[in-house]
Amino acid sequence: MTNYLARVYVRLKPTVNDPQGLTIKGGLHSLGFGQVADVRAGKYIEIRLASDDRSAAEAQVREMCDRLLANPVIEEFRFDLEEVAS
Amino acid sequence: MTNYLARVYVRLKPTVNDPQGLTIKGGLHSLGFGQVADVRAGKYIEIRLASDDRSAAEAQVREMCDRLLANPVIEEFRFDLEEVAS
Repeated sequence: MTNYLARVYVRLKPTVNDPQGLTIKGGLHSLGFGQVADVRAGKYIEIRLASDDRSAAEAQVREMCDRLLANPVIEEFRFDLEEVAS
Repeated sequence: MTNYLARVYVRLKPTVNDPQGLTIKGGLHSLGFGQVADVRAGKYIEIRLASDDRSAAEAQVREMCDRLLANPVIEEFRFDLEEVAS
């Protein structure tokens, strides 16, 4: 078994309204960052898992995203996978 | 002025307790993903901004993180910056 670190990035689909992002944008404008044109807020999840090999780990992380981490109706995800020592 | 897309990743410092991550880990275990050893939950924020050049954009995004996006007491952040057309 090899240990992997998966970094999962979940964000709302571009067509979905993002009130959290709009609130952050408003806050940044209030702080004087008027050059900010748009903000989108999402989730960043780090998962450490043990797996036989890279392709098995990729399949597992993809299934985790599909079943729990992302809502496929309104969100999209991507991830990268890094082999780690411990 | 050039347009940039900043991708900001905010996560809890390693020593800080992460109940959201523990909940996700429990959910993954319940779904049968017993190979998951640890989960850490964080934020992923995309910011589109206009700036004179790359170094100015970097300085601005770093200041946004310091002042609003991350809580320096319990969180750490990193970001990358990409030049975009529109």
